[in-house]
Amino acid sequence: MYKIAVLPGDGIGPEIVPEAVKVLEVIGRRTGIEFQFTEALVGGAAIDARGQALPPETLDLCRQSDAVLLGAVGGPKWDALPPEERPETAALLPLRKELGLYANLRPAYLFEPLAEASPLKREIVAGTDLIIIRELTGGLYFGPKKREKAGTGEVAYDTMLYSTAEIERIARLAFDIARRRRCHLTSVDKANVLTSSRLWRDTVESLKGEFPEVTLEHMYVDNCAMQLVRRPTRFDVIVTENTFGDILSDQASVLTGSIGMLPSASIGGSTALYEPVHGSAPDIAGQQKANPLATILSVAMMLKYSFKMDGAAAAVEAAVGRVLAKGYRTADIYVPGTVLVGTAEMGALVRQEL
Amino acid sequence: MYKIAVLPGDGIGPEIVPEAVKVLEVIGRRTGIEFQFTEALVGGAAIDARGQALPPETLDLCRQSDAVLLGAVGGPKWDALPPEERPETAALLPLRKELGLYANLRPAYLFEPLAEASPLKREIVAGTDLIIIRELTGGLYFGPKKREKAGTGEVAYDTMLYSTAEIERIARLAFDIARRRRCHLTSVDKANVLTSSRLWRDTVESLKGEFPEVTLEHMYVDNCAMQLVRRPTRFDVIVTENTFGDILSDQASVLTGSIGMLPSASIGGSTALYEPVHGSAPDIAGQQKANPLATILSVAMMLKYSFKMDGAAAAVEAAVGRVLAKGYRTADIYVPGTVLVGTAEMGALVRQEL
Ligand SMILES: CC(C)[C@H](C(=O)O)[C@@H](O)C(=O)O
Ligand SMILES: CC(C)[C@H](C(=O)O)[C@@H](O)C(=O)O
Repeated sequence: MYKIAVLPGDGIGPEIVPEAVKVLEVIGRRTGIEFQFTEALVGGAAIDARGQALPPETLDLCRQSDAVLLGAVGGPKWDALPPEERPETAALLPLRKELGLYANLRPAYLFEPLAEASPLKREIVAGTDLIIIRELTGGLYFGPKKREKAGTGEVAYDTMLYSTAEIERIARLAFDIARRRRCHLTSVDKANVLTSSRLWRDTVESLKGEFPEVTLEHMYVDNCAMQLVRRPTRFDVIVTENTFGDILSDQASVLTGSIGMLPSASIGGSTALYEPVHGSAPDIAGQQKANPLATILSVAMMLKYSFKMDGAAAAVEAAVGRVLAKGYRTADIYVPGTVLVGTAEMGALVRQEL
Repeated sequence: MYKIAVLPGDGIGPEIVPEAVKVLEVIGRRTGIEFQFTEALVGGAAIDARGQALPPETLDLCRQSDAVLLGAVGGPKWDALPPEERPETAALLPLRKELGLYANLRPAYLFEPLAEASPLKREIVAGTDLIIIRELTGGLYFGPKKREKAGTGEVAYDTMLYSTAEIERIARLAFDIARRRRCHLTSVDKANVLTSSRLWRDTVESLKGEFPEVTLEHMYVDNCAMQLVRRPTRFDVIVTENTFGDILSDQASVLTGSIGMLPSASIGGSTALYEPVHGSAPDIAGQQKANPLATILSVAMMLKYSFKMDGAAAAVEAAVGRVLAKGYRTADIYVPGTVLVGTAEMGALVRQEL
């Protein structure tokens, strides 16, 4: 029996999360494994009901669960709050830190039928299958920061701070994932300018010997931002610092057609967290228009990384592939000649294919 | 009379720079303005001859000139050096800092005949005409940094540090450039997470009243990395922090077909610096294969920003457009059906069109 904390959150969250839960229920019936789901409040919904984006009971539930499924948080309703108090920041950052989720895994995989929807030419994007591993609890996000008066104005700073141990654990994880994929690891830094990047590069380099089957290359972050657009197929696994990873993974997320297709996993602690890459899309919330596939693919990642059910994970991915191949599309990936379906309908189609 | 310091540098630098110099000579003859060129060593060439990537006499020459034209620096010969001693880092960073070049201007403009060469679909890239203004002497590159032993390992940090005054001067410059373009300014930060970004956002916002004709929007850096690929035409002027600008401008540079087409200007001090965005391309150096257009377009920026010769600048850009429209291409932008030409030939074609 696996306990899963279900945090639908805001906007389209409450529409897409149930579709992913139902997929897990099918897998459960099929494999005889019981998944026990418990819902909790997070984000704007939690601010409204409890006055906090991440109430202690939600954090406790997550800690006691085997995995967390999160929908999306945030929306215009809470945009008047200072940036650091908005649902995204005030829920996601402490959740990552408290659960010790030091690695964010973001695959960018092209489902062939969606090449049309990519901003890239078909011959550039065809075959894209990469994963970005972003360090998630260190670097510029969590280092010392301050804002203070100085002369007639102010100064403010953030610190990109890393220790050998922090870099080693994320690098080991990246090498290990590369070893199970195409054995190619790109470590991204700015070692020609940044001191923390030099420690990053030296540390990653020092682990190379432990993974002889993996080819390691180092790439500057600016060059990586270019190569991702120019030739995404050259990448297999990319590992990088928190802020660089934030930028590069969002960039990578549009290459394959729609951010509505992209799952993510945040791992490292005892309880991992799974969520779609996209946001709460308040403009289409409550209209059954949202694409549930990113959330469904996130539970495929849950099956793989939290429950070691690689077969079930592959089955979910294959089901999604078949639904797309048959021409079904939600609005975000619709092109003329395909069949437009809503959120629940798309979820049902995936379950039928399972 | 204008004095121009000419720093060809390494790799293809010595092949492309003369083509740009000759363009300026034509402009000089045409307008009756005298340009006086003085060459100096920089980068790997300077390391070899003088033991320093930026010899004092080169810096002095730059200081005494009205503008600097730089080719490119770096190459495999110097890659064995520690990253911070390589020509790129050891020449460019102190040159920017010493000349007070706090603003790096990088246009990404699609020459219509090159839509073929873009990794983006034609309907996505058509009409792209944006400029990224990157803060160049502050932020993560120049804040306090350190690496030291800690326990059994090490820690290292860099500091993203900004003062109100630093942000104000780059923001004013960006507003002013937006005012002369399509009056749309996007300020890019990560104000939901970073303290320095909050100061950035507040400071940019506080200047809005001085430029009532400009529409200002704020965008998170991760979102900007997405939008640049998804819909580059939505941008006019983008202003951002040093490291964010490094990443975003390199990303933008591949959208329009070839990095071989992209000029840059670094301004702010009394002497501005103009250089192509691309590197020294050691693999094709000495073969007359390099594209001189980025360097030629860099002197167009020089005419505009250093000498206020907007008409001459537009004439150079138009000449480049006509050469491309006639089907001439260097190897980096060649597609079947066009006419392949070498470096000097491309330079001559532009001068003919002038
Ligand atoms: C909302 C924000 C704090 C978050 C981040 O930057 O980590 C988001 O952009 C993400 O990538 O999950
Ligand atoms: C070579 C390097 C120091 C430089 C930078 O990061 O500024 C380069 O990438 C650039 O963008 O001009």
